[in-house]
Amino acid sequence: MFKRLLSLLLMNSVILSFCGSVAGQPPRGPLVISPDIHADKSVTFRYLAPAAKEVKLSAQFEKAPVPMVKDSSGIWRVRVGPVSPDIYPYSFLVDGITVMDPANVSFFPNERFKASLVDIPGDTALIHSLRDVPHGAVTYEYYPSLAGTTGTLVIYTPPGYDKQTAVHFPVYYLISGTTDTEETWFKVGRANFILDNLIAAGKAKPMIVVMPYGNIEARMAEQKGGIKPADPSNREGADAIVRAKNFENDLMKQVIPYVESNYRTIPGRNNRAIGGFSRGGGQTLRTAFGNLDQFAWVCSYASYLSTPEMERSFPSIYETPDNTNRMLKLFWISVGTDDFLYKPTIGFMDFLRSKNVRFNSLITDGGHTWMNTRKYLIATAQLLFQ
Amino acid sequence: MFKRLLSLLLMNSVILSFCGSVAGQPPRGPLVISPDIHADKSVTFRYLAPAAKEVKLSAQFEKAPVPMVKDSSGIWRVRVGPVSPDIYPYSFLVDGITVMDPANVSFFPNERFKASLVDIPGDTALIHSLRDVPHGAVTYEYYPSLAGTTGTLVIYTPPGYDKQTAVHFPVYYLISGTTDTEETWFKVGRANFILDNLIAAGKAKPMIVVMPYGNIEARMAEQKGGIKPADPSNREGADAIVRAKNFENDLMKQVIPYVESNYRTIPGRNNRAIGGFSRGGGQTLRTAFGNLDQFAWVCSYASYLSTPEMERSFPSIYETPDNTNRMLKLFWISVGTDDFLYKPTIGFMDFLRSKNVRFNSLITDGGHTWMNTRKYLIATAQLLFQ
Repeated sequence: MFKRLLSLLLMNSVILSFCGSVAGQPPRGPLVISPDIHADKSVTFRYLAPAAKEVKLSAQFEKAPVPMVKDSSGIWRVRVGPVSPDIYPYSFLVDGITVMDPANVSFFPNERFKASLVDIPGDTALIHSLRDVPHGAVTYEYYPSLAGTTGTLVIYTPPGYDKQTAVHFPVYYLISGTTDTEETWFKVGRANFILDNLIAAGKAKPMIVVMPYGNIEARMAEQKGGIKPADPSNREGADAIVRAKNFENDLMKQVIPYVESNYRTIPGRNNRAIGGFSRGGGQTLRTAFGNLDQFAWVCSYASYLSTPEMERSFPSIYETPDNTNRMLKLFWISVGTDDFLYKPTIGFMDFLRSKNVRFNSLITDGGHTWMNTRKYLIATAQLLFQ
Repeated sequence: MFKRLLSLLLMNSVILSFCGSVAGQPPRGPLVISPDIHADKSVTFRYLAPAAKEVKLSAQFEKAPVPMVKDSSGIWRVRVGPVSPDIYPYSFLVDGITVMDPANVSFFPNERFKASLVDIPGDTALIHSLRDVPHGAVTYEYYPSLAGTTGTLVIYTPPGYDKQTAVHFPVYYLISGTTDTEETWFKVGRANFILDNLIAAGKAKPMIVVMPYGNIEARMAEQKGGIKPADPSNREGADAIVRAKNFENDLMKQVIPYVESNYRTIPGRNNRAIGGFSRGGGQTLRTAFGNLDQFAWVCSYASYLSTPEMERSFPSIYETPDNTNRMLKLFWISVGTDDFLYKPTIGFMDFLRSKNVRFNSLITDGGHTWMNTRKYLIATAQLLFQ
């Protein structure tokens, strides 16, 4: 009984601290289970909001927000699906306000929006799922970045890395998209479980995956103060070039030397890959084309460079295609048919073809999503360093 | 110009995907900077919600929610402070709905609520801040937990751990509170920066800090399906004892063996500490009192055991106080005067004193908060293994 009182007190404390001021909500609410995934792969979502007038589910597996219904305890709910097995971002629209699911720990790290993640399991565990195989580790490292700032890298090391102290590994530098953070390939992309499972199946070479933060300017603003991050929707061409160069400088002069002196890497371009999604794909193409002597494996996921930029900045790539083709052991371009970058990416492929620059491509259904970019990682991780 | 169009497209995509359905919000919004910390330690918070009727700031440095004011661009804002330097949870109350700050990457990992974090810097960098000192790393490890599940541990290794391959370290097992996750001591508690800074100043011994997840049952529910997590506000005494025992079993039989076989630890009770906040403090006391041969250093942050539980479960602790006092190199109890657990914690101290069980205590201002528990970690980390 005493413990039960204590439990009640503890619950109250948490709720009073964070929800006590929410209009119409009792200080102690019922325990809300959400998302609640059923055996048939339908999912019930729940959200406690007795005073709300309208609550909808906004999920990337639905074309439009789905209305939810309130029960007598003030919990809004909806059962949707069956949903095709995958990991999807979602949020609730509560009287028009976007909120994460308070009952769900799994979230989408991002600078500009907050979303929760729902993971619909496959009948057999999907390649991005936690399976009963040897697991690598994911380490947050602090490294000296540009302008005296300290950056964070998220680094996957393959299973057994700490035990096989004489073995060295190739490295894949893997960059997330616009407004994503260095955590997004880990938390949303599941790069670690994808590699664990592919390595266990003998389909991918054991490798280190280094996930940097793409927005150097935001880090400088945070640590140095006074500098406000530039508005990406309002930047000029010159600013975009400075940003791309900042990223390249940080990766080439700070990140790679740090990784190669602190991890057991195999040096040299044949054991160094670079890839990225969206803005990270642009950073990949610019960094790789500007440093072809440093990377033999290049993966662009839902990104491209324009013909004017190719002509201005990287003419040698297409003017000497035989050299490019000889240097690049893998040049990969992927995009979805519903991606808003589909047409320019196809245009980029056409440009490369017209210049006899070879590349592999995978065109999928779907849009500019992390469901797609995980597919691209799964496909390319099986080709790298092989 | 082309790049600028691309930037606009990229911004639109993100906003359309996640905010496009928000009533009254334009598909492309202005860039919102929040929180915006000024030199005088006042802070401007901003939240874009053109259609909202009322927005308030709910922050743990304010006694009550603070009204915000909307400008012509639909951004609500308020400038508060100066605020005493520390890291505080906060959220916005938007027409009564609690939301995280979409513009802020820094968040509070928790099972039941979602809050953002604002870090008010000191005039000289606080002990929990990123300073220009050698940094340890923080690693997410996957280990075999109870009932065939796979658990996650967040593990701090001190600066130079990977280079000093012949050196072994003592280990502090550090547990977070009710509804917290294995990430909370890292992301909110800043255990890594606290240790980095104390080690650099020669005030703490280099040590490994292992941060487990306290809610074994939730993990089993998630991975095994069918089992719903118990409602902590509705649990019975018997259930509470099962839960405490599950945690102890997982720590003693799964976590510690995993850590000691995968990290360079110094084995034995003299080099093994256990501590925790709130529920984690209760788990600490129960695990330590039940395994006094395994831990010589015990830290309870804002937690206690009741006299009935001491009498029922741990009589040897107070029946042979000389043995307890000889075995425990540090027995630490902390609580804040505004903590809702203040009185029972003082009662626990009185009980121990009446039985001649020695302990150190630090009573602070403030409540059951992470501002306080960071203070307790800072105080105790300087005593461990010394």
